[in-house]
Amino acid sequence: MNPTIETLLNHRSIRKFKDIPLTEEQRDTIITAAQQASTSSYMMAYSIIGITDQQKKAALAEVSGQSYVKNNGHLLVFCADLHRATVKADQQDYEKMLENLENSEHFLVSAIDAALAAQNAAIAAEALGLGICYIGSLRNNIQQVDDLLSLPQHVIPLFGMVIGVPDHQPDRKPRLPKEAVYFENEYQPHEKILDRFDDQIQDYYKSRDSNKRLDSWTQQMLRRFTNTMRMDVTDFVKRKGFNKR
Amino acid sequence: MNPTIETLLNHRSIRKFKDIPLTEEQRDTIITAAQQASTSSYMMAYSIIGITDQQKKAALAEVSGQSYVKNNGHLLVFCADLHRATVKADQQDYEKMLENLENSEHFLVSAIDAALAAQNAAIAAEALGLGICYIGSLRNNIQQVDDLLSLPQHVIPLFGMVIGVPDHQPDRKPRLPKEAVYFENEYQPHEKILDRFDDQIQDYYKSRDSNKRLDSWTQQMLRRFTNTMRMDVTDFVKRKGFNKR
Repeated sequence: MNPTIETLLNHRSIRKFKDIPLTEEQRDTIITAAQQASTSSYMMAYSIIGITDQQKKAALAEVSGQSYVKNNGHLLVFCADLHRATVKADQQDYEKMLENLENSEHFLVSAIDAALAAQNAAIAAEALGLGICYIGSLRNNIQQVDDLLSLPQHVIPLFGMVIGVPDHQPDRKPRLPKEAVYFENEYQPHEKILDRFDDQIQDYYKSRDSNKRLDSWTQQMLRRFTNTMRMDVTDFVKRKGFNKR
Repeated sequence: MNPTIETLLNHRSIRKFKDIPLTEEQRDTIITAAQQASTSSYMMAYSIIGITDQQKKAALAEVSGQSYVKNNGHLLVFCADLHRATVKADQQDYEKMLENLENSEHFLVSAIDAALAAQNAAIAAEALGLGICYIGSLRNNIQQVDDLLSLPQHVIPLFGMVIGVPDHQPDRKPRLPKEAVYFENEYQPHEKILDRFDDQIQDYYKSRDSNKRLDSWTQQMLRRFTNTMRMDVTDFVKRKGFNKR
């Protein structure tokens, strides 16, 4: 099979790493690959903060509640960054820019730019034989992450990514059937497909190597969405000058 | 060089395609690769609409203002999808879910999930020798795109992607220097780096094969952000039940 397709299809999140830091060359390759991702209207509206300060890493691991945020080969934090576009603007231009900086369009643009760069970083790392895991749980206390990284106005942390030499080989987690995420020409109701997927995923949870349990996808979603989560993200992003109008 | 890294680094957006539709196998590989991307807490909070109806494709091309949205091997529209998580909820649970469905946290989660899947699709396509271009300009009239694709509440179109056999080989567009997007441990002011990049990009615009002009990155950003753009996206996403609280 095409080695790139193989890399993409073999993805699994790695949460246990050998105690081996990434080499300078690995870091460079991963960041360069991230930068080459597509970007909306050439905005490159993201920044990446690599954490080498062990105290800072421990503090971020505490926010996330995950030890592998501390124990890995490298930790990156991906940020939406509209600040860079403003640094050469005078006060009058900056005030004109605010309407765009603060609307949902550019909140989306910057989040999407950051995510495209991040996924290139993930693929590059996996192509180098490393493993990765996205760390959304940095948003458990997004204000604290923001403070730790000294992010200016119009820059917010979105998620982390841990990278390193894998020290386990987890099962590849089943995905929704293609018919549940890909439609032609218009959206299609897909309740019956979800029923079949729930059956399949129950079997997966019952039979996998670790953390066996009785669960289904629908039940997971119901649990997640009926308990309020990270409600402070809304106010935080507004304070930082995103998504206000 | 590692063929996957090579694919990542060779990316350029393709805006002119040969009149050759993607094969069924190519489409399948691209969608399967998209699905294997990481997803926040297993939410898989996105949907992909492939456009095979030529009239619909023409209508989307008109929204974008770009002929290559009509003339390509295939057109995908990536959507943020929180609807799927709600289909098995009863009325009482649905009402409880709204607090999460409507907050900025899950607006981010769904936009990022869609973008990670899209970037996997892009890499898969390029690994197959195809070219791609993201189509943010579908948001020129996001409500019309939403209508064309019959998207239910809690599903919104984010961007398109055209895929096909390249019929041109554009220059690889320079990226910001690594020092401008990657920092260690905390954000760093980088005005001087931007000055140097502006010099470099002026040379690029003066010397490239097509659409030569006098321009810099800073000037482009100033132009873009001082003219209001897609201000209707804010209200649209709220009407669809995203980003309301």
